[in-house]
Amino acid sequence: MLCNRYCREMKNIDTLLHARWVIPVDGKNRFLEHHCIAIHDDRILEILPCDDAREKYSASVSRNYDQHALIPGLINSHTHAAMNLFRGLADDLGLMDWLENHIWPAESLHVNEAFVHTGTELAIAEMIRGGTTCFNDMYFFPDITARVAADIGMRASVGLILIDFPTVWANNSEEYIDKGLAVFDHYKGHELIKTAFAPHAPYTVSDQPLKRIRTLSDELELSIHMHIHETAHEVSEARKNTGVRPLTRLYELGLLTPALQAVHMTQLHDDEIPLLASSGSHVIHCPESNMKLASGTCPVKALHDAGVNVALGTDSSSSNNDLDMFGEMRSAAMLAKISTMDATAVPAEQALQMATINGARALGIDDITGSLEPGKFADIVAVNFDTIETVPVYDPVSHLVYCSSREHVSDVWIAGRQRLTDRVLNTIDESRLKADCIRISENIREN
Amino acid sequence: MLCNRYCREMKNIDTLLHARWVIPVDGKNRFLEHHCIAIHDDRILEILPCDDAREKYSASVSRNYDQHALIPGLINSHTHAAMNLFRGLADDLGLMDWLENHIWPAESLHVNEAFVHTGTELAIAEMIRGGTTCFNDMYFFPDITARVAADIGMRASVGLILIDFPTVWANNSEEYIDKGLAVFDHYKGHELIKTAFAPHAPYTVSDQPLKRIRTLSDELELSIHMHIHETAHEVSEARKNTGVRPLTRLYELGLLTPALQAVHMTQLHDDEIPLLASSGSHVIHCPESNMKLASGTCPVKALHDAGVNVALGTDSSSSNNDLDMFGEMRSAAMLAKISTMDATAVPAEQALQMATINGARALGIDDITGSLEPGKFADIVAVNFDTIETVPVYDPVSHLVYCSSREHVSDVWIAGRQRLTDRVLNTIDESRLKADCIRISENIREN
Repeated sequence: MLCNRYCREMKNIDTLLHARWVIPVDGKNRFLEHHCIAIHDDRILEILPCDDAREKYSASVSRNYDQHALIPGLINSHTHAAMNLFRGLADDLGLMDWLENHIWPAESLHVNEAFVHTGTELAIAEMIRGGTTCFNDMYFFPDITARVAADIGMRASVGLILIDFPTVWANNSEEYIDKGLAVFDHYKGHELIKTAFAPHAPYTVSDQPLKRIRTLSDELELSIHMHIHETAHEVSEARKNTGVRPLTRLYELGLLTPALQAVHMTQLHDDEIPLLASSGSHVIHCPESNMKLASGTCPVKALHDAGVNVALGTDSSSSNNDLDMFGEMRSAAMLAKISTMDATAVPAEQALQMATINGARALGIDDITGSLEPGKFADIVAVNFDTIETVPVYDPVSHLVYCSSREHVSDVWIAGRQRLTDRVLNTIDESRLKADCIRISENIREN
Repeated sequence: MLCNRYCREMKNIDTLLHARWVIPVDGKNRFLEHHCIAIHDDRILEILPCDDAREKYSASVSRNYDQHALIPGLINSHTHAAMNLFRGLADDLGLMDWLENHIWPAESLHVNEAFVHTGTELAIAEMIRGGTTCFNDMYFFPDITARVAADIGMRASVGLILIDFPTVWANNSEEYIDKGLAVFDHYKGHELIKTAFAPHAPYTVSDQPLKRIRTLSDELELSIHMHIHETAHEVSEARKNTGVRPLTRLYELGLLTPALQAVHMTQLHDDEIPLLASSGSHVIHCPESNMKLASGTCPVKALHDAGVNVALGTDSSSSNNDLDMFGEMRSAAMLAKISTMDATAVPAEQALQMATINGARALGIDDITGSLEPGKFADIVAVNFDTIETVPVYDPVSHLVYCSSREHVSDVWIAGRQRLTDRVLNTIDESRLKADCIRISENIREN
């Protein structure tokens, strides 16, 4: 042989990330040690041992994460991002008291384009700093939400909200849908932004617009993002008003399909779980919001055992009060254990799946993100395990869920572009953003 | 008048801490804005408006916390500090599997003086960085735990452990008690360190040593720190073996007094709550450990309504997996709400009391710490609210519990001495400590 390993031509690529641990969440329940992620043209090219990577690739950017775990970017599958500006406005209250006497009045007074712009920017800043690279939103002015996310370089599924009553965003279901479709059109084919229909809840959206959304969802291949069975009160009121449970009504309207993202689902009869499983619908679990508002407990283990895809969301910062997916993973695991009295329920690996690949499946984007696999976009988070709070390390997966926290996120890439470097945001001016938020909050506090 | 306000003599003191918010936890359910804490001779001299403080005092050290809340140092009322070196060693397991098949074997192989020294140092480093200024410990080698805490300048109540079986620390109850009393003698009158008897649990300590501890507790005025009713299994086994529930047995042995710190208490009959209340015994609630091990839920709201003092602890890092009292406050509030289906249960103010003044009461040190009041030691934590995760602020108390986290702790004082400055530990070399921990963990991993 004339050519040995040393004269083999090296391939030039964009980025090499060498890491102590790589947790790919690729369905093989494993972690890799001393591996490297090769990135080119915004996507993951290969994951290979560091030594092999040094021989095979030369990269424009090469970085070492000797004490870090690289994980897929977390996916927050249920947010109302702009509500970050209301966080802490009303705490220690039940859902309907909180909504009717505090949040809805505050929204009617304060929500406008500027509020949504700044609130969404604050939420995205918090999410990126906490290792979240994609969020699934539902709020007014989805056009603003989409634009802010695109400008920052954040991945998002933006909900095209629909609610029976008039708001500052639209006056009636036709207008909600028309304005939503304009946002859909604008972002069609965008690398980072997709859209989904977001009818608020069964108790706030009537049959006619739901039927129209069902048809449009089929035609345009859009997901449907909806609060369902958040509380027992919602279910009992619906039975009084319609004679059936909300899930039954949605089933009869044809909404239980793989396009449906059913958020909360704290109330489930045993026969509803197989119905969800056979429909291919997804459940979005929001444990901290459900606990804080005393809404109820989603039976995550039973859903998982039945084959339902369960993703994870924080809900808004007004009911949580953060967008911290590390905290949400821990809470999901702990709530599952205590509610089933089974310490093996929702183990660490499953909590991590809920926060990554399961979210991607629910949002219909698991072909492009949600795990670290060749061909997918490089949505990657580096978590520093070399801190007082995180030494020593025995199992990096359980460590990630039960020991490390959002503050250990050091670096974040979204579609191959670095958006956080050593805990500093690259596309957001933190000082200016904080000043904007404080200015808006002073107005809210005075009213 | 010859002398106006400008010529009045200023008093020279050690320290002035000016803050945007002061949350004193002084029983008045309030926060103060633009107030200053004046500190002299390790104790709080006065809390007064910043403008008044500038006129009245000149201080050797004066610092401004314009965007911070000053709160009492948090009290972690149940720890096994040295077990930080085992964190993440065995997760997603029930209590007895976890104890019998993982933790006890690991302890018998690895626990020695060096382990306890380094593990305790790691735990104290984590606690101070997380705003905890006092911990209530139970572990082997309490002499080492006490020495490490005293050397670092950490406040602690060190448990004089007692268990029926021989361990590396002692061989029989006489030796456990004798060695414990030597530790008690050594630290009598120490400014930071006190001791308490720590019989492990009803199922591991028999009647005779418990009676002796009861007598000694009275004579020496020492608290008794004990796991009680952690799981339903413990209670049912005790009924089989003794004919009565553990709490009944302890009552009959005379242990239900204001000296008792009953840890966990997830199993309580309705008639046991008034018994606890009338005895003046304290309950230490460990929500995250109880959730993660699926042990059960302590009825905090019912205990509180009955007048029982309930404090808060993390339990060990092996079952939690951190010593984060901010996380524990949130978990206590959320678990109380979901377990009672009442969103008003354990509101933020009460969670904060559990983590501060209630802990001081349980440990018998509420005359010297647990709140920010003149005459008490200056055990103070500054929490930075000027971060992406913590703007805007509406109610600083709910913000502290539901929004801020351990990483927002910037500065910590214990008995007037600054132990954390801008997140850097003043009396611990972090790099050396991390290296020590990693070296010990490599030995544990290999065995």
